[in-house]
Amino acid sequence: MIKSHNFGAGPCILPSTVFEEAAEAVKNFNGSGLSILEISHRSKAFVEVIEEARDLLLKLMGLSSKTHTALFMHGGASLQFAMAPYNFLSKGAGYINTGVWSKKAIAEAKKIGAVSLLFDGETVDYKSVPNKKELETLPTKGYDYIHLTSNNTIYGTQFKEFDTLGSPSIIDMSSDIFSTFRDYSQFDLIYAGAQKNIGPAGTTIVVIKNQFIEQIVSRNQLSMLDYRKHIEADSMFNTPTVFSIYTSLLNLKWLEEKTISVISENNAKKAALLYDTLDKSAHFKGFAGRECRSEMNITFTIENPAIAEAFDLKCKEENIVGIKGHRLVGGYRASMYNALSLESVKVLTDIIEYTDNA
Amino acid sequence: MIKSHNFGAGPCILPSTVFEEAAEAVKNFNGSGLSILEISHRSKAFVEVIEEARDLLLKLMGLSSKTHTALFMHGGASLQFAMAPYNFLSKGAGYINTGVWSKKAIAEAKKIGAVSLLFDGETVDYKSVPNKKELETLPTKGYDYIHLTSNNTIYGTQFKEFDTLGSPSIIDMSSDIFSTFRDYSQFDLIYAGAQKNIGPAGTTIVVIKNQFIEQIVSRNQLSMLDYRKHIEADSMFNTPTVFSIYTSLLNLKWLEEKTISVISENNAKKAALLYDTLDKSAHFKGFAGRECRSEMNITFTIENPAIAEAFDLKCKEENIVGIKGHRLVGGYRASMYNALSLESVKVLTDIIEYTDNA
Repeated sequence: MIKSHNFGAGPCILPSTVFEEAAEAVKNFNGSGLSILEISHRSKAFVEVIEEARDLLLKLMGLSSKTHTALFMHGGASLQFAMAPYNFLSKGAGYINTGVWSKKAIAEAKKIGAVSLLFDGETVDYKSVPNKKELETLPTKGYDYIHLTSNNTIYGTQFKEFDTLGSPSIIDMSSDIFSTFRDYSQFDLIYAGAQKNIGPAGTTIVVIKNQFIEQIVSRNQLSMLDYRKHIEADSMFNTPTVFSIYTSLLNLKWLEEKTISVISENNAKKAALLYDTLDKSAHFKGFAGRECRSEMNITFTIENPAIAEAFDLKCKEENIVGIKGHRLVGGYRASMYNALSLESVKVLTDIIEYTDNA
Repeated sequence: MIKSHNFGAGPCILPSTVFEEAAEAVKNFNGSGLSILEISHRSKAFVEVIEEARDLLLKLMGLSSKTHTALFMHGGASLQFAMAPYNFLSKGAGYINTGVWSKKAIAEAKKIGAVSLLFDGETVDYKSVPNKKELETLPTKGYDYIHLTSNNTIYGTQFKEFDTLGSPSIIDMSSDIFSTFRDYSQFDLIYAGAQKNIGPAGTTIVVIKNQFIEQIVSRNQLSMLDYRKHIEADSMFNTPTVFSIYTSLLNLKWLEEKTISVISENNAKKAALLYDTLDKSAHFKGFAGRECRSEMNITFTIENPAIAEAFDLKCKEENIVGIKGHRLVGGYRASMYNALSLESVKVLTDIIEYTDNA
């Protein structure tokens, strides 16, 4: 098999051991003689999987099941864009717009109730997000909740620190969960589509503070959009995405073994290597403001078309995949999720240096 | 590996070749050096997968993309219970209650608008569903739509024929799609959770008549619940469940190769063998009324506890799995989806005969 260096923005690289174990389970799950694809979600074997995954999720966040509830849900972050306001928006919510995903969340919330835009990234071309001090000065009091997006995959921006907000907080962590240390206890609801640092596409994690559950607005909610139904049913309100949850468990175990500490160090090293290389180069320009450069998605452009062409060719030769930028920003985007090795980043930085000096 | 006979109600058995191919793709998708779990849903490779799956879905239904649109969606049939009324219920809908799944669909519809119960299976303890003649006599005119469930997995009942209804029709075919010949063109919207005869849990197919799309009610719909958003985005409104869709394609290809004709014959043979064995036995009693016995889920009880115990033991010895009845009905349920072999059914009927005569 050719070794590819997968810089794709998501669904993205996962550890090769996870692929091996998941493939084995598709053939023969835990030596049962059955495929993971053909077992009942209510079987003892799968109930153990989902319970272990839930517990591990909370453990990796440093949270307790006494204070928080973890769910595996359908629908991706996009369904959460709707569910957050559907369950919690009553008098008004505050949103922080740091790019496309925030905007999508805002659009859904506006269909349900009053939305105040507390920070509008459009005014800074989405090159920066509020730092801790700026967050502090935002008028965050008196809302049902404040909504944030921790990392923007398209512009390559990321919150480095959060501040205590004046209202409960809901955060979309789809693209940087478990990539670095976070105080997860400061948020009231955390959601993340699995397909970056958790597992394969098709499941979405939601972690909610038990106290916050009591603030769910009473409407005649559609069941699938009602967090309470999913909580009561232990994420088994309907058939969950068994394979995605099982593979997420494999990846969470890998993460536990590696430790968030080592992962976080590696991610910092990988990002430093690439940003330093870009900063030193003559032709490659980073997109995001230095203060809020993402460690997960590194966006850059090449102004000289001849250099860009040489770079593309070299990337192809070295089996670099998924590096094309999002159509909204253009240029390039190197996504460097947890499972991407420093070696893969070195292959990329060598190409950048080579192309830059060619 | 021990050979199991998987009679589980779903997620359920799929062809062993599908498991092999899916496992290979988890390691190395189409020789790309990448896992199917790490490729972008917008990559050329996956766009080809979803397009082929959509085309094949329509082809197997005998429908054309000129008249119908096929979607792969999140959320299972349970989300469709909500989406059908959310998109189409305006003045009133007619529902046919043939058991638990219909009731769940009715409960969601009632949150949105006026629901008329045209047939209430509760009055016959869910032992039967309307036959063609009975359907004909139901007052089905003047509704936004009539909703039916083609097969009930819990009671083991199934519609054998449908009649032209006086209003558009929406049908939940989660548990018997592609199991026998159907005139799919008679329905305006068909939905089915994948995890029976389509593929692994985590994706849901929706096939909708193009003319019917025009009848979607204008509300300020939440995007994820708006069929039009998913249609416009070719099922890529957000990241779809890549692996479930890919594996569904593998299974649809298997189905195409086998042909619905052969599958349908096999299913009829399997069901006849089991029902005949039950009918001849002294201790085993079928649950569903003869006229509407399901070919997919065969429900039965054993009144004598000693016989039941002997049967359980023998099933365990022969590696029969997933045969316990649903808690609402008790007893046993042998689910015999497309990929279950006649040989597995023979193992079961041998046990029934053996236990019955012991």
